[in-house]
Amino acid sequence: MENKDIIPITLKKIIDDISQFQGYGEKSAQRFTVNLLKMPRGEAIELIRTMNKMLETVHPCKECGLYTEKEICDICSDDKRNRSVICVVEESFDAFTIEKTQVFNGLYHILGGRLSPLEGITAEDLNIKKLLERIDRLNIKEVILATNPTVEGEATANYIHTLLKKKTVVVSRIAYGIPFGTVLENVDEYTLSKALENKIKL
Amino acid sequence: MENKDIIPITLKKIIDDISQFQGYGEKSAQRFTVNLLKMPRGEAIELIRTMNKMLETVHPCKECGLYTEKEICDICSDDKRNRSVICVVEESFDAFTIEKTQVFNGLYHILGGRLSPLEGITAEDLNIKKLLERIDRLNIKEVILATNPTVEGEATANYIHTLLKKKTVVVSRIAYGIPFGTVLENVDEYTLSKALENKIKL
Repeated sequence: MENKDIIPITLKKIIDDISQFQGYGEKSAQRFTVNLLKMPRGEAIELIRTMNKMLETVHPCKECGLYTEKEICDICSDDKRNRSVICVVEESFDAFTIEKTQVFNGLYHILGGRLSPLEGITAEDLNIKKLLERIDRLNIKEVILATNPTVEGEATANYIHTLLKKKTVVVSRIAYGIPFGTVLENVDEYTLSKALENKIKL
Repeated sequence: MENKDIIPITLKKIIDDISQFQGYGEKSAQRFTVNLLKMPRGEAIELIRTMNKMLETVHPCKECGLYTEKEICDICSDDKRNRSVICVVEESFDAFTIEKTQVFNGLYHILGGRLSPLEGITAEDLNIKKLLERIDRLNIKEVILATNPTVEGEATANYIHTLLKKKTVVVSRIAYGIPFGTVLENVDEYTLSKALENKIKL
């Protein structure tokens, strides 16, 4: 019984590839293939066709890096936005999420990741040079660092903050505090201490 | 500012579809698209091509339901396997996992899911009729019910067990007990009580 290759090769190849995705593992890759195989065939073919189309049409905005189907995204080309503020985020979906709040009306800048020495992601791999160039060219007055509140997101924000010290821009970081709708006893100590440090005068 | 549609439509369509996958949500669907867009283009196109090929070539084995590229899978067509024992699992990957242990040398039967009233999955949706037919035709002596040790997997095993009472087969269930390599204090009470109930004489 040396039957280890009973998994069809196409299945194995897809699982191997998707297992390498950030935030994925072998189990979620397996689930992906099973779900695709179980879908009504026509819908599965359509989904794959849409993936192909996405690769052809979607790319980072030439200006800010946001995923778009145009050369310049809808935000960068919108005259009604405040063109003196840039919100710096790790990925396009962070910007999409912020847009849903309808609270921010400035421009975005997508880094395309965060500093991660463990994964070999350095400042060179991020869309930082372009940020500095945009700040000068667009005469930006304020930069909001909205990288994730994780160790890596923090390090990335700190790194960019240091670079910006030479420039005459106001730099701010999204606030840490208690998430709306939670009870105090469920909030971790670090978040609670930050919420107290950053208390707001009423 | 009514800018809610800044997500490219192909991206949105893919996320909507993958969000519906079992075991997936919006976040993992988003991660999928970002990973695909960030892959070297040639590799991404190749991955999508492999998905297409998988849909064309991989299908359930006509006999046992295991995902295979052949009409009859390698296990069902292997004369060296014990053709009097059937191991019943929920999905193909459960069988692939069991194969890795090299402990089982019988046949498999893939149900293609488990009973789940909440998701509207009834006995009709599972590959059960064929199991009963195979037991008679192949003159099966033993059926091992290896559905997952979850509420739904249990219900599925119980259901099949009831159906098999009319037949002259030995029915067994995979053992519950302490996972190898764990410490007792980390084992939940239910598993520990099952491990004591099912103690093995040395």
